Amino acid sequence: MTSSEERLSTDDVRSDEPLTHAQTVWFEEPLLLERGGELPRIRCCYETWGTLNADASNAILVCHAVSGDSHAARHDADDQPGWWDGLIGPGLPIDTNRFFVVCPNVLGGCRGTTGPGDLRGESGSEKNGALDGQSHPPASHPAPSDPAPTSGGQPYGADFPRITLGDMVEVQRRLADSLGITKWRAIVGGSLGGHQALQWVSRYPDCTHTCIAIATSPRLTSQALGFDVIARNAIQTDPHFHGGQYYDRPNRPVTGLAIARMLGHITYLSVAAMEAKFDPDRHDPRHIASDFEQRFSVGSYLAHQGQKFTTRFDANSYITLSMAMDLFDLGSNRLRLMETFDECTCDFLLISFSSDWLFPPDQSREIVNALTALDKRVTYAEITTDAGHDAFLIARDMATYGPLVQERLRPLSEKLRPPTEEPSGEDASHAAASETQAPVQLTVAEESILEIIPAGSRVLDLGCGCGELLAAIRDRHAETPMRLMGVEVAQEKILSTAMRGLDVIDYDLNNGLPAFIDNQFDVVILNATLQAVDNVVALLEEMLRVGKKGIISFPNFAYRVLRDDYVTRGRSPRAAGEFDFAWHDTPNRRFPTIADVHDLLIELGVTIDREIYWDVSQSRHIEADDDPNLNADTAVLEFHCD
Amino acid sequence: MTSSEERLSTDDVRSDEPLTHAQTVWFEEPLLLERGGELPRIRCCYETWGTLNADASNAILVCHAVSGDSHAARHDADDQPGWWDGLIGPGLPIDTNRFFVVCPNVLGGCRGTTGPGDLRGESGSEKNGALDGQSHPPASHPAPSDPAPTSGGQPYGADFPRITLGDMVEVQRRLADSLGITKWRAIVGGSLGGHQALQWVSRYPDCTHTCIAIATSPRLTSQALGFDVIARNAIQTDPHFHGGQYYDRPNRPVTGLAIARMLGHITYLSVAAMEAKFDPDRHDPRHIASDFEQRFSVGSYLAHQGQKFTTRFDANSYITLSMAMDLFDLGSNRLRLMETFDECTCDFLLISFSSDWLFPPDQSREIVNALTALDKRVTYAEITTDAGHDAFLIARDMATYGPLVQERLRPLSEKLRPPTEEPSGEDASHAAASETQAPVQLTVAEESILEIIPAGSRVLDLGCGCGELLAAIRDRHAETPMRLMGVEVAQEKILSTAMRGLDVIDYDLNNGLPAFIDNQFDVVILNATLQAVDNVVALLEEMLRVGKKGIISFPNFAYRVLRDDYVTRGRSPRAAGEFDFAWHDTPNRRFPTIADVHDLLIELGVTIDREIYWDVSQSRHIEADDDPNLNADTAVLEFHCD
Repeated sequence: MTSSEERLSTDDVRSDEPLTHAQTVWFEEPLLLERGGELPRIRCCYETWGTLNADASNAILVCHAVSGDSHAARHDADDQPGWWDGLIGPGLPIDTNRFFVVCPNVLGGCRGTTGPGDLRGESGSEKNGALDGQSHPPASHPAPSDPAPTSGGQPYGADFPRITLGDMVEVQRRLADSLGITKWRAIVGGSLGGHQALQWVSRYPDCTHTCIAIATSPRLTSQALGFDVIARNAIQTDPHFHGGQYYDRPNRPVTGLAIARMLGHITYLSVAAMEAKFDPDRHDPRHIASDFEQRFSVGSYLAHQGQKFTTRFDANSYITLSMAMDLFDLGSNRLRLMETFDECTCDFLLISFSSDWLFPPDQSREIVNALTALDKRVTYAEITTDAGHDAFLIARDMATYGPLVQERLRPLSEKLRPPTEEPSGEDASHAAASETQAPVQLTVAEESILEIIPAGSRVLDLGCGCGELLAAIRDRHAETPMRLMGVEVAQEKILSTAMRGLDVIDYDLNNGLPAFIDNQFDVVILNATLQAVDNVVALLEEMLRVGKKGIISFPNFAYRVLRDDYVTRGRSPRAAGEFDFAWHDTPNRRFPTIADVHDLLIELGVTIDREIYWDVSQSRHIEADDDPNLNADTAVLEFHCD
Repeated sequence: MTSSEERLSTDDVRSDEPLTHAQTVWFEEPLLLERGGELPRIRCCYETWGTLNADASNAILVCHAVSGDSHAARHDADDQPGWWDGLIGPGLPIDTNRFFVVCPNVLGGCRGTTGPGDLRGESGSEKNGALDGQSHPPASHPAPSDPAPTSGGQPYGADFPRITLGDMVEVQRRLADSLGITKWRAIVGGSLGGHQALQWVSRYPDCTHTCIAIATSPRLTSQALGFDVIARNAIQTDPHFHGGQYYDRPNRPVTGLAIARMLGHITYLSVAAMEAKFDPDRHDPRHIASDFEQRFSVGSYLAHQGQKFTTRFDANSYITLSMAMDLFDLGSNRLRLMETFDECTCDFLLISFSSDWLFPPDQSREIVNALTALDKRVTYAEITTDAGHDAFLIARDMATYGPLVQERLRPLSEKLRPPTEEPSGEDASHAAASETQAPVQLTVAEESILEIIPAGSRVLDLGCGCGELLAAIRDRHAETPMRLMGVEVAQEKILSTAMRGLDVIDYDLNNGLPAFIDNQFDVVILNATLQAVDNVVALLEEMLRVGKKGIISFPNFAYRVLRDDYVTRGRSPRAAGEFDFAWHDTPNRRFPTIADVHDLLIELGVTIDREIYWDVSQSRHIEADDDPNLNADTAVLEFHCD
């Protein structure tokens, strides 16, 4: 593994170093909290990269996870590493040459923004001055500027009011206002940062053009919730916890906090990642200075990580932030989630990771299903990785999903311009920097399909491959915005389709189309995919439910050449084209003939509106009355159900 | 869910109730421990059911898991529930009418056998008398018989020597000796109990006829190990732990122990089980008397379970037993595992559970692969369930895997008797009680295969279905013991095959045959399965590696009737037999013709030794020179590779 992959979590990046580029702003108006109570004034600590443009249209909000902070990336070559260095920077997916990037510490945290370590009634000590550009001691070691607490001048501790994701967003909203930002170009975050992004758009449906939610969920699983409960129990039963009033005491609840962190660590790693890291030397711990058990290599690792965490993170903050995450709940069923996102005007990009068992991919899929049922613009990819939940921070995985992020952040005007036009202005420099899209090459069947899709149609392409057909449809009708969506299951193809600026979701057609509602599309296409489908009848019925019309294209198994091959050689039929495989390793699952498909469609009660037949091997169009079942190797059928 | 399914773990069964049926024996000879040190004398507490027969051949050892004890089952209707009531009792799979069942508390435990709560130097207090048949206070509250510890009369506490699974087995070995048992009929256990069973047979290869290891592993995963480390850290950092010397103090390390138990609970449950139990009322906790967090329903559940555990289990024992489990390591690669089990003479039954993520099925498979490579008698089934690791204790899952256990415990003499003979004596009553096996009905292809298998062959049947062919082979050559093994992937078929007394392992043929070594079998059969295989070439090559000869039977896709159907109707070929499916829902993955298969075999360099063709639909044998590719619907080919 490279050194960046060695880094299995944020810990190796995080440090106690002062936040030398942090800025601070005070919000003097009291913040009324969702669950009752208020904070009289809020201090917000944040970092920025890049420059806000004239119309404040290039601002991107980056939201950190539970143990993160404002230092998402380096500001210069000499700066401390940031937790998302692979994603944020000059020329990177979140391009600081183009965007004004803002990353605030969350409310309830301990890295500059108001949190439980701050003085009650003050919502932050007067060390404001000490923060602006000067070294700032970690909040777990508050500045001695108030050595003798006055009455009412005691830290909140465990009495810090219960805050929610909504409260965190409110503080960020005030920050946006103070920076003159009325609409974000994008809001991006992973894990708890993803919760923030989703909370933003559900509360302020017009707040951003793009919402990018990574390794996240609409609520924690009961298992994740259980782990958080145990972590908090460990902290709160630490003998030095003292109801959270430990700041002026000689000892802090470091044991409980370390145990909480050890637990978190295991949940961030996949089983495979732990095996790879700890199995080879299971019984050979590296001994560190610690009272924690170090009989096994995983033990010394956990002891090290646990203890390191306590030097930079505050126990009360851990309780406050984990509780906010545990209370976060956008809905546990599709209807409720649809209510949540109903009014959003942004487009969505969701990314999950296959080995993430803390925020499992199914949870992202719940959100995706609600968004697609609402007909929102959404792209969803489940990235295959063995890095677990931490993958969203791992360089190798960032290299995989980064291009998706980059594509969704292309200039807005570019989204309406077909790739054949010459770019101008800012777009020109962007286009020059990115790959030029080659004009798409369509198959004969795809050309036929292209011809019969009316302008302005809402189109769903099932098994959309690399998105060539969808892109061609978009380009053909460039003057008329069309609702286009692809469904694909192969990761590389999903990425290729998304890179064309199309919406595509990671979906196995053999599960039907539960993401979509009745008559959501004018046309549902199943192009050159029928032979790969297990549940053919179920899928055709779903196509008819979801679309007003269906179009299928498929290779004809009864094609003359194949029949000859079968009859004369007595072998499994084989001919140039989709059936050019040996019987024993053909990827095809189904072997449809035109006659079979006709029979089935009639059985299903559909009306066939159009039939287009080709002998592609001879570049010859076959008329419908010229025995296509014998003479055509390819068929395109358009149909509907009354 | 039924009330038994409500029970998600052992906790609802376990109680503080005295072990009214427990017996005790003292072993006065010092026990030298594997990792150094010794225990001067050992007290072993155990329970028994049934009666030992005259030649001590009907004894079954039942091994409990980490938080279990000797009370595996009720002794009578008025007795307290046992943790394996569904498996042990009159007429149950571990039939107390037939067997003498023994369940001891493990060394290092706190339910009667010597453990950390016992007095140093004594290895147990003089409350021996109090144990025999009288009420025995839970070991976490030692009897006040030694109120004033004499010098050297202090409990071991955390100074209890480090013990291993090997040490536990030694104590059980002494118990066996004391009961006059030289060879067990079976050793059965789940989780840590499974570790004990595996440790027994690896140390004493002739100790038992049958080894039944459930929901277990050759070692813990690094993830499971990490969780144990955290649990011990929680206990050992509890302010009341006092180096394990808490017995005479007013407070015990109940907080740390409760936290350890909460963590364990989450690992025993599947994600799905937790969602089902806690999602519906996530925000509605049932408030119990507890200082632990109870904001969420899962929180109050964990608080309840954690606290309940501390009333019946000793913290030092938890540390001792979890450490023994963590040190347990039979090998991390196949070679090492093969060394471990090389000399075992017993047959094996391994069972895993699909949603068990603490002892994942892959770990059982590692053991199975080593055993099959050693040519041991082994049956393996992965039971589909959403109950997680706890499944081995859940009534519904016991009902599924119980019959496997019951079958493996059938009278030994019965294993050599074909089902057509009349049973006599003890066998007669057993046979009367169990289902009579109906004579098997073979297909024409299977009859052909049966004819060409020589007596005494070692036979592997890939995709063995319900085991009819293997059973027929066994019965045909009843006078010659044959090595027969089946491979199947469908749970019901695995169970059916095992119920015929055959060895069968749960295996996906598309992964090749890595469990087996070169030339392990005389004959490898692929009967009526070829059409279901994805990796045909790879599987054929594996068959040739693993067996001296291969026999395949398959339906012929070039059969006359199918050709006619294709040519005249222009539809995907369909005819009575294996190809009698519509094109869109045929379960067949491959469509082999006799000519195709011949071609492929020749390409692979094999020699075809025998060809048998049938037109089964006409009950007609087809000669090899009578154009079988046209006239036969079924083929059987026997081949080998030089």
